[in-house]
Amino acid sequence: MAEHRHRVVIVGGGFGGLYAAKSLGRAPVDITLIDKRNFHLFQPLLYQVATGTLSPADISSPLRGILSQQRNTQVLMDHVIDVDAKQQHVVTPNRVIPYDTLIVATGVRHHYFGNDDWKKTAPGLKTVEDALNMRRRIFLAFEAAEKESDPEKRQALLTFVIVGGGPTGVELAGAIAELAFKTLKNDFRNIDVQQTKVLLLEGLDRVLPPYAPELSGKAAASLQRLGVTIMTETRVTQVDANGVTVQRDGQTSVIPSETVLWAAGVKASSVGKLLSERTGVALDRVGRVMVDSDLSVPGYGNIFVIGDLANFSHQPTTQGKDSAAPPPSLPGVAPVAIQEGQYVASKICAQLAGKPKAPFRYKEVGSLAIIGQNLAVVDLGFVKFSGPIAWLVWIFAHVYYLIEFDNKLLVLLQWGWNYFTRQRGARLITGEATLSSPVPSASPSPGKQGSDALNDRVSVEVS
Amino acid sequence: MAEHRHRVVIVGGGFGGLYAAKSLGRAPVDITLIDKRNFHLFQPLLYQVATGTLSPADISSPLRGILSQQRNTQVLMDHVIDVDAKQQHVVTPNRVIPYDTLIVATGVRHHYFGNDDWKKTAPGLKTVEDALNMRRRIFLAFEAAEKESDPEKRQALLTFVIVGGGPTGVELAGAIAELAFKTLKNDFRNIDVQQTKVLLLEGLDRVLPPYAPELSGKAAASLQRLGVTIMTETRVTQVDANGVTVQRDGQTSVIPSETVLWAAGVKASSVGKLLSERTGVALDRVGRVMVDSDLSVPGYGNIFVIGDLANFSHQPTTQGKDSAAPPPSLPGVAPVAIQEGQYVASKICAQLAGKPKAPFRYKEVGSLAIIGQNLAVVDLGFVKFSGPIAWLVWIFAHVYYLIEFDNKLLVLLQWGWNYFTRQRGARLITGEATLSSPVPSASPSPGKQGSDALNDRVSVEVS
Repeated sequence: MAEHRHRVVIVGGGFGGLYAAKSLGRAPVDITLIDKRNFHLFQPLLYQVATGTLSPADISSPLRGILSQQRNTQVLMDHVIDVDAKQQHVVTPNRVIPYDTLIVATGVRHHYFGNDDWKKTAPGLKTVEDALNMRRRIFLAFEAAEKESDPEKRQALLTFVIVGGGPTGVELAGAIAELAFKTLKNDFRNIDVQQTKVLLLEGLDRVLPPYAPELSGKAAASLQRLGVTIMTETRVTQVDANGVTVQRDGQTSVIPSETVLWAAGVKASSVGKLLSERTGVALDRVGRVMVDSDLSVPGYGNIFVIGDLANFSHQPTTQGKDSAAPPPSLPGVAPVAIQEGQYVASKICAQLAGKPKAPFRYKEVGSLAIIGQNLAVVDLGFVKFSGPIAWLVWIFAHVYYLIEFDNKLLVLLQWGWNYFTRQRGARLITGEATLSSPVPSASPSPGKQGSDALNDRVSVEVS
Repeated sequence: MAEHRHRVVIVGGGFGGLYAAKSLGRAPVDITLIDKRNFHLFQPLLYQVATGTLSPADISSPLRGILSQQRNTQVLMDHVIDVDAKQQHVVTPNRVIPYDTLIVATGVRHHYFGNDDWKKTAPGLKTVEDALNMRRRIFLAFEAAEKESDPEKRQALLTFVIVGGGPTGVELAGAIAELAFKTLKNDFRNIDVQQTKVLLLEGLDRVLPPYAPELSGKAAASLQRLGVTIMTETRVTQVDANGVTVQRDGQTSVIPSETVLWAAGVKASSVGKLLSERTGVALDRVGRVMVDSDLSVPGYGNIFVIGDLANFSHQPTTQGKDSAAPPPSLPGVAPVAIQEGQYVASKICAQLAGKPKAPFRYKEVGSLAIIGQNLAVVDLGFVKFSGPIAWLVWIFAHVYYLIEFDNKLLVLLQWGWNYFTRQRGARLITGEATLSSPVPSASPSPGKQGSDALNDRVSVEVS
């Protein structure tokens, strides 16, 4: 028996890592939670920061504040550069931190399918800085259009292209359409904001591909009513200063646009690759760690990978049990990460008590996506619906999670205010106040595009 | 008579420019409001962003939103690079904008009295970016201290030096002391936040020099109760990687500190110098424009300068009318700018109607400064008080102005929440997540320091 209490090191303070830490709050362990940032981010609402409705602090909670009363836990703002699975420690730039059990929950980043030069022109949406960058780009485009006298350039400034028709893309497109056609209706004198074009590009044959087809149809109809133009079966082959080059029906065309937003794909955090090198664990094609049925790394019963970084494929499919295809991995959504964090916490407690623990099993809780003010689609498995009721479910599901950490009823009030006034108080252009210079044209390469299995779906527990 | 309506160009969307525009809302004029930013900033609360209580959007309102219903007004996000007083137009990088009347309200910046190399080490507080930079610096210092094993370095990380004992300095010092000793009390495991030092340096013999001495005394006592160390008659001679070098009682000493915050002096916007070159108008020693008794530029009855950029010295002193000294100029506070904006609007209307207009006269409305949670000092001229009542007056005076523009009752709720929980939800470290590298040591030069006449006093109307 060691002199010290069992040491749990958790890397990453997202939903997975944070729920693991909270679930171990009364366990006889010493926890170190390491994160690069000093706050937990409620990522499902990040698009509302990007479109000027909420402030970053509205959807963030300081990790120290959340865990200040949990005396067995210390928070370290640092980043992990190595893991020694044999010696059982993680390495940060200035220290070595020993563990008895390691939980890795560093998530995913957005990803351009090998076209990293698109990044400058087409920002993605994973961090607070990403959201503020998007916000700056969107509002600067309107400001520049107001000053532009060339009609073609003005139309390019008023054309917003969202790449990827998953939930993030759908939410961004709906929010930008509402922004242009409602919030900003009376704000400009030289441009007619009704000429704004909001294009949503999707590689597959419908928006929200992970959802049931009828919900995709309803979402598409709602988006079109808001003024969004949906282009399905459309592949993006180039993003540059001219706009977006797309292939559709075998035809190639260029959509002139100054504002291209990326909502198409994700890639595992680099800690996954590190773990693979140190333990030999397999990764899937986007770099996620292939975990065992108890979420551990095969051969290392004291290293767990949870959340978006984990590829968990042991789930029995609810339908078609006799199907020959391997079961799909769990999607990269908050409820999966939360349940995985809670499971690993109880697994550790069981191990310490010398008790067995059944494999992890995900309890399906449904999917939601919001399209606009009082428009949403909800898929609870046994029931699917859309419209204002779905919107209310969405609102309360999100607020339910927000107030787990902090009093975010203020967010509800903010929404209420926005709902009745259609104002967006947070539409500040901050930071570098210029349109980012377009990327010099690179050699065109065909881009895989569309909703990835990993697509950062908005999906929250509503039970 | 010209073909067009009388054209008013307003440069700057702070209190002066915005109130001028609003007051001309029904006048038979065409208004162009030019600002570098797309929002009006409620600067008196900027220190609450810097210390993690409020978000930038809480104290900002989009200019287009404020003026969207005012059909005679257009907003242009642009910056003025020249003024042609003879041809009557202003120049921005891409256009020439003619005016019949010009109102310049571009304010002041913070200023290091010739020691611009201190800027990197000792950030000031004038813009949203300044506030977020300060916030990052303050919270990163605690994070770095938590990881630091060398006791001396740790103490330097836990030492916060605020240069300048005017209202901004007093408010920052009080807020940081509350942050360290109350909000963060349970948040760290390796450091004892009770060892935090908050030093407030002032060149004169008391804090809040523009206020009555008894209020300075009460403010000092309140700050000391919160844990702030006040050093009066202390001159800063150097700011560098070692910390702050000060002269006091003829002695020179170095205060090791990683976080030095600048609240000591301001300098007029460069548009003042431009105006002086184009019109020959005199500037005072900090670059403010010496305006006529109607706030116009001498010799140019259609160019007005208002707000912090104006030096208005025509005010009769309320006391000591037989004093030989020239009357002091009006302080750089919001009520002065607001009244000046309103005056110029009515002056323009009088001119258009061919009616005379009496010179500008400032109506004194009192001064307030907040020291901490439910501690403030108020000087209304006829009555001076401090303590919780003063704090309530301060809160309501501020909210009164905030809701002029937007529904900022949410700010009141946010404060209420913070008041009862002592939480600071907006303490995110965003942007560049490293302590800024210290400035290489420069040749020491004696620095003038202390509360400048222009010091950005928090002072709002409470009548």
